[in-house]
Amino acid sequence: MAEASCAPGKVTEILADFATSFPSGMIPDNVRQHTLACFVNWAACAVAGGQHETLDRAVQALEPFFGVGRASVLGRRYKVDAVTAAFLNGMSSHLLDIDDTHHQTLVHPSSPVVAAVLALAEYVPLAGSDFIDAIAIGIETECRVALGIFPSHYEAGWHITGTVGVLGAAAAACRALRLTPLQTAWALSMAATQSAGVRGVFGSMAKALHTGRAAQHGLESALLARSGFTATTDGIESPRGFARVSSREVSFPAMIEGLGQSWSMLGNAFKPYACGLVLHPVIDACLDARKRPAGAAQHIESVKLQVHPLVLELTGKKNPATGLESKFSVYHAASVALLDGHVSIHHFADAAVSRTDVAAMSGRIGIQTRPDFSKDTAIVTVEGRNGERLESRVDSALGSLDQPMSREQLDDKFLDLCTPFLAPDAARRALAACWSVGADKSVGDVTRHFA
Amino acid sequence: MAEASCAPGKVTEILADFATSFPSGMIPDNVRQHTLACFVNWAACAVAGGQHETLDRAVQALEPFFGVGRASVLGRRYKVDAVTAAFLNGMSSHLLDIDDTHHQTLVHPSSPVVAAVLALAEYVPLAGSDFIDAIAIGIETECRVALGIFPSHYEAGWHITGTVGVLGAAAAACRALRLTPLQTAWALSMAATQSAGVRGVFGSMAKALHTGRAAQHGLESALLARSGFTATTDGIESPRGFARVSSREVSFPAMIEGLGQSWSMLGNAFKPYACGLVLHPVIDACLDARKRPAGAAQHIESVKLQVHPLVLELTGKKNPATGLESKFSVYHAASVALLDGHVSIHHFADAAVSRTDVAAMSGRIGIQTRPDFSKDTAIVTVEGRNGERLESRVDSALGSLDQPMSREQLDDKFLDLCTPFLAPDAARRALAACWSVGADKSVGDVTRHFA
Repeated sequence: MAEASCAPGKVTEILADFATSFPSGMIPDNVRQHTLACFVNWAACAVAGGQHETLDRAVQALEPFFGVGRASVLGRRYKVDAVTAAFLNGMSSHLLDIDDTHHQTLVHPSSPVVAAVLALAEYVPLAGSDFIDAIAIGIETECRVALGIFPSHYEAGWHITGTVGVLGAAAAACRALRLTPLQTAWALSMAATQSAGVRGVFGSMAKALHTGRAAQHGLESALLARSGFTATTDGIESPRGFARVSSREVSFPAMIEGLGQSWSMLGNAFKPYACGLVLHPVIDACLDARKRPAGAAQHIESVKLQVHPLVLELTGKKNPATGLESKFSVYHAASVALLDGHVSIHHFADAAVSRTDVAAMSGRIGIQTRPDFSKDTAIVTVEGRNGERLESRVDSALGSLDQPMSREQLDDKFLDLCTPFLAPDAARRALAACWSVGADKSVGDVTRHFA
Repeated sequence: MAEASCAPGKVTEILADFATSFPSGMIPDNVRQHTLACFVNWAACAVAGGQHETLDRAVQALEPFFGVGRASVLGRRYKVDAVTAAFLNGMSSHLLDIDDTHHQTLVHPSSPVVAAVLALAEYVPLAGSDFIDAIAIGIETECRVALGIFPSHYEAGWHITGTVGVLGAAAAACRALRLTPLQTAWALSMAATQSAGVRGVFGSMAKALHTGRAAQHGLESALLARSGFTATTDGIESPRGFARVSSREVSFPAMIEGLGQSWSMLGNAFKPYACGLVLHPVIDACLDARKRPAGAAQHIESVKLQVHPLVLELTGKKNPATGLESKFSVYHAASVALLDGHVSIHHFADAAVSRTDVAAMSGRIGIQTRPDFSKDTAIVTVEGRNGERLESRVDSALGSLDQPMSREQLDDKFLDLCTPFLAPDAARRALAACWSVGADKSVGDVTRHFA
C-alpha cells in the first residue's frame, strides 16, 4: 500500500492501488459509519435538489438524448440511463449547498462520489457493503488529492469540489467495478484530464454542472478503462498533469502518506444551512441574537457583523436576484436568520429573495472584516431603536467539526428535505432504508423508496 | 459589434453578440471558402479516426447509455443521439493528429466545432449557408480566445485545443440554434466552466477526450441555455473565470479587437502528416533527403537532426510503444520518412511501431536542438556508410501558412483517408457533396454519403 517515501511519480498508481486493493476488512468501523451518514445526508440533498428548477431546465434541454432508463433520479419519478443519472444526481445533490464539507479543503465530497456509485449500482449488482467501501474509498481519494493542492488551487479560482470530485467518483466507480490497478490508474488519469469548474459561475445554475460532470465523467472514466480505453498512469502528478497544471503549490506526500491508516474523510461534516459554509457562524450568531428580547426584528435599528475576510470575499453579494445568488449573500443569510429565527432551504429559494422585509433588514447590516478571526468565528452586534445593544459571538457553528450535527439532527434534516416529495411515512421508511443500506444484498433496491 | 475600446468586463458578452448577431452577409468570401475547406478536411479526419480502436473502446464502454439514434458517427455504420455523436465525432476527427492547426496558437480548431454543429444539423433543420456561418463563427471564437491566453496557457500544460474548443463549439451551436445574446453569454460561461484537458495525457487515447468533450459540452451548453439553464455572463473574463484561472498572462483585447473585421481563423491550415505539427519540417527534410541517391536507407550510417528545442520537448519519445505514442516521437517520424519516402496515417499506427527497420533507423538518429531556429525550420544531415554526406534543409513544411496544402492535395487527402471505408467512387461522391454543402437546403443530408 502507500509508502511515505514513495516517489512523487507514483501518486496516481498508489491511489489506484488503494482504490482497487485496500482490503474491505481494514476500513475502520468509524469510517464505515461516517460513510453511511454521508450517504443518508447525500440522499436527502438529492431528493430536495432534484425538484429544483435547475433540474427542470437540464432535463428539458437534454431529455431527447437520454438513454434507456434503469437508474433513478432522486426527487423525480422517472428513470434514465446510468450515466445521465450520475450527471443529474450529481447536480441535484450539491445545488442547494446543503450537502457536506471537508473542512480542511472546502471540498463537498459526497455529491459526485455517491451519484456515480448509486447510478452504477442500478446498472450492475452491488452489495451494500461493497457500496459503502466504494464510497469511502472515493471520498478519501478526493479529499487526499485536495489536501495536496489546497489552498493554492482553490485560491486560483478552481471550484475544488468539481475538480477533485471527478477523481473521487472515478476511484469509487473503479472499486465498485473491481477494476485492475492499471485500469484504475487509467481511469484516474482520464478523470484528471476532464477535471473542470471555476468559482466564477457561483450563484448560477452552472455551478451544479461541476458536481454533475464530476459524477458523470468519473463513472464514464471507470467504464472506459474497463473496456481498454487507455490513458497515461500518472495523470495526477506528471509535469503536465492535473496537479501541477492547475495549482501553484502542490504537496504529493499529502495525497498519499498514511493512506488507509489515517482517514482524511473523517474531517467531512454535514451542513445544516443551504448556503456557503462561511455563512454558518453568522447564521448561528444571528439565530442566537434573535432569541433574546432585544433581538426581535421590529426593534432592530442596525446590525454590525464582524467576520473573517473570506466571508465578504465569497458571499458579499448585496442584492441577490435569485435563490441561487442568495446563497452567496451574507446580508441575505443574516437577515432571514434575524427575521425568522430559523433557517431552512426555503430561505434560499427565489421567493425569499423578493421579500421586502429581507431587503429592509439587509439595508441595516454593516460588515467589519476581521483578519484576526478564525473562519469559524462571527460576532453580531444588534443596536435597538431605543438604544439597547446586544452582542452574540459564535466560535464554532452547528455543522463544524467541533459541533457536528447529531444523528437526530441529521434524521430531522433528512425528513425535512424529503417531504413533501415523499409523504411523512414514506420519508421515514426511506430514511430507515438508507441507514440499513450496508446490509443490502443489492443496493439498487434502496432507490425504490424514493420513487 | 466589437469595440476596440470596450471594457474587459464585457468579453463574453461581446463574443456572444458576435456569435448571434454578426450578419451572415458580412462574413467575407475567403472566410466562407476557408470554412468549407475546414469542413471537407474535418470530414476526412473523422471518417479515418472513426475506425480507430479508440472509438471501438469508447462505444463498447458507453453504448448501453446512448440515446435514440438520429445522428451519424463518421467512419461507422450506425446512428446515435446527437450529443453522443458530437462526443464521438469530436474524438475521431482529432485523434489521428491529422486535422488542422491555427498556427498562432497551436489550436486544432475544426474538430470540436464541426462535430457539434454537424450533430446539431441532424437534430434540427439547418441550411447549408447557416451551417458554414456557424462553423466560421465557432472557429473564429475559439481562435480569438486562444490568442488572448497563448502562450502562457499552453505552456502551463493545458491542451488548448480542448480548453478553447468547448467555447468554439458552444458559440457555433448557439449561432445554429439562433439563440439570443443573453442565452449565448450563458452558454459561453457554461462552456468556460467545463473547459478541460491537460497535455500530460498526450500519446494515449485520453487525448481524444479533450475534443470529444469540447464538442459535446459546447453543444450541451447551447441546448441548456436555450432551455433557460442559467449561468453568469462573464465566464471568460471574470476574476475567477476561465481565462484568469487557467492562464498567467491574459490579453482580453486580443480576444475582441477587430472581431468580424480581421479573421484570425484564416491562419488555420491543414496537416498533411498524422503527427504533431512540430514534426512536419523534419518529415519534409527527411523526405527530401530520401529522394537523393545518398539518402537511400540502406546506405545510411547516421542521421543528425537540427531542430527547434520544442521538437524534443514535445516529441522526444525514443521508443514509442503504440501508434498514438509514435505521433510524439521525432525518431519514429524521421525514420519512417527516410525508410519509405512517403508518410501516411499508417506510419503512425500500431503496426508501424513494431517494425524492426524503424527501430534500427531510430537508433542511428542524433538530435541537436537549435534555439536560434524557427519552429518551421529543420535540417537533416545524413552520413553514408562510405563517408558520403548530404544535408537537407526545410524552412516551411507542407501544411504551414507559407506552404498550405492545395485544393488538389486536400482532395487527395480526403480520398486517402476515406478509403477503404468508402469505395473509391463513393469517396469521390462524398467529397463532391462536402464541397457543395453550403448550397444544401438541409445539411443533415450530407451525412448519408458517409453511411
